Amino acid sequence: MKALVLRETGLNLEEVPTPVATDGFVRVRLSAAALNRRDQWIREGKYPNIVHPAILGSDGCGVVDMAPSAPSLLGQRVVIDPGLDWGVREDAQGPTYRVLGMPDQGTLADYIVTPEHNVRPAPQHLTDAEAAALPLAGLTAWRALMVQGEASADTTILVTGIGGGVAGLVADLVVALGARLLVTSTSQQKIEAARERGAIAGFLTTHSGWHKELTSTYGPPDLIVDSIGGAFMNDLFTVIRPGGTIVSYGSTLGPVPSLGIHRLFWKQIRLIGSTMGTPTDFTNMLEFVERTGIRPRIDTVLSIHDAESAFDRLARSEQTGKVVIRIV
Amino acid sequence: MKALVLRETGLNLEEVPTPVATDGFVRVRLSAAALNRRDQWIREGKYPNIVHPAILGSDGCGVVDMAPSAPSLLGQRVVIDPGLDWGVREDAQGPTYRVLGMPDQGTLADYIVTPEHNVRPAPQHLTDAEAAALPLAGLTAWRALMVQGEASADTTILVTGIGGGVAGLVADLVVALGARLLVTSTSQQKIEAARERGAIAGFLTTHSGWHKELTSTYGPPDLIVDSIGGAFMNDLFTVIRPGGTIVSYGSTLGPVPSLGIHRLFWKQIRLIGSTMGTPTDFTNMLEFVERTGIRPRIDTVLSIHDAESAFDRLARSEQTGKVVIRIV
Repeated sequence: MKALVLRETGLNLEEVPTPVATDGFVRVRLSAAALNRRDQWIREGKYPNIVHPAILGSDGCGVVDMAPSAPSLLGQRVVIDPGLDWGVREDAQGPTYRVLGMPDQGTLADYIVTPEHNVRPAPQHLTDAEAAALPLAGLTAWRALMVQGEASADTTILVTGIGGGVAGLVADLVVALGARLLVTSTSQQKIEAARERGAIAGFLTTHSGWHKELTSTYGPPDLIVDSIGGAFMNDLFTVIRPGGTIVSYGSTLGPVPSLGIHRLFWKQIRLIGSTMGTPTDFTNMLEFVERTGIRPRIDTVLSIHDAESAFDRLARSEQTGKVVIRIV
Repeated sequence: MKALVLRETGLNLEEVPTPVATDGFVRVRLSAAALNRRDQWIREGKYPNIVHPAILGSDGCGVVDMAPSAPSLLGQRVVIDPGLDWGVREDAQGPTYRVLGMPDQGTLADYIVTPEHNVRPAPQHLTDAEAAALPLAGLTAWRALMVQGEASADTTILVTGIGGGVAGLVADLVVALGARLLVTSTSQQKIEAARERGAIAGFLTTHSGWHKELTSTYGPPDLIVDSIGGAFMNDLFTVIRPGGTIVSYGSTLGPVPSLGIHRLFWKQIRLIGSTMGTPTDFTNMLEFVERTGIRPRIDTVLSIHDAESAFDRLARSEQTGKVVIRIV
């Protein structure tokens, strides 16, 4: 089969042996994969424990074509849970948990072999490209918002950094849930795009008075879902309502330089970390997406022959939605 | 009546008008009060919105001697909920919430008038001095451990800074609950005292390898109740088990200088602020203390005529338990 192989010298489309599914596993003939920041970080060498050669890609959609111990799955159009070996606890992954794509083979290939219980029917209303765009971002968004954030309707929810793939799906989930969506970004264009998808207001964090403007007009949010971190976290401590929850699933600005913990305890703030999600989270996310008709936003669809330029698009943070790779 | 009055020049025992209870309020003839760090901070001018003159004291025990709209309370030995006007939400206090003692009259006086619903029967197994030592620390400990921390038996709970009054009560609650208690301190003597009260082990945080020693012997704790904050929080992020909870009710080391938020989200840590507690928390705490026979530890009992030296003892952090003021 052909596969996009990451070597120390870079990415190469190569011919590699086609994997074979044994009992407990299925093989999926992939039609589409999607890129995540993780893939670009690994390409740049900015990820722990990088192994070469590696076939990247955590997101994929395709059709099951080999299923020795689960023949009913044959011919099903599926998406793949990007997490392997979560472990026994619901509240955190175990020590052997891995994300699909390095060291395990990822989805940037014609075929992938994965445990039977990692595949789920692809939501019927989604194209292959949309379905491939969903798994990692949708799972991360679901756990952050619904499990760790315990989001509910009739609340006000602030989603920061609305340009990101996960943030966009968090926003879609908030709207589908019937909660009030506020967003922040450093780009007016991304705020406008979020308003078109249901945000009631957006705030440019390049404007220092953004949080006063937010609270004076909409009141403090009950829940914030954040991936910015850094000094921005202290702004979030200011803006969150007393007793409110901040879920953090990333920190593009790095560590928080001087966290005002006195405000954490005086305001009874709940700061909760979230990463990826359990197999149950994945099932629940897909069920919700199917029921509410959410469609992940696609930035571009490129052929696996143009994969390098797809990665470059991520490197420059140009995308406003997922970058999808057509495999066939 | 006599009262200890804080003026800009310092503390003075003075004769002041005896307050009178109107409908909805009761008057308590106080027999004992207890000091908290808050009192000393106000004395030192290190507290927001200080008003002079003020009668400090958030903790008290005494007998109801005037109750115009609740005659059944007359003659009851009571403790006083140190919180006024918590507000409507269970998850955080409202904007008009105050702690007893500055600006409202505190317990360092012969009498105090307080809302009817702020008094509760004093636990029967406690002396007046012990009962007076309980309210603020017990309420803070209860909410931090049981409400925000959702503590349960069959878990391992680490209580930091075991010398403090709240930490000591958290430790007692952990033991009474049937969970495994680990403690930290900078003092071997305080660790020994905690072991005598049921801690299975204690760790000197002056020894840089303390957290490796802890996790290698006892495994990572499920819950940490902390009042240290500062750079110590990053050690707690290292020691907590994935998916575990850290409840913060103080930060004697101040803000966290560079919080590694990537560990928060990757380990799915829950960092939850806690301060004081609701009227319901106060009731539940007293019921638990009465049922389990917990006795707050008393450092010293001094007469209100020696109140200044009692405050000085707090200023030097010499106490290993509560400093109680005998009023009568």
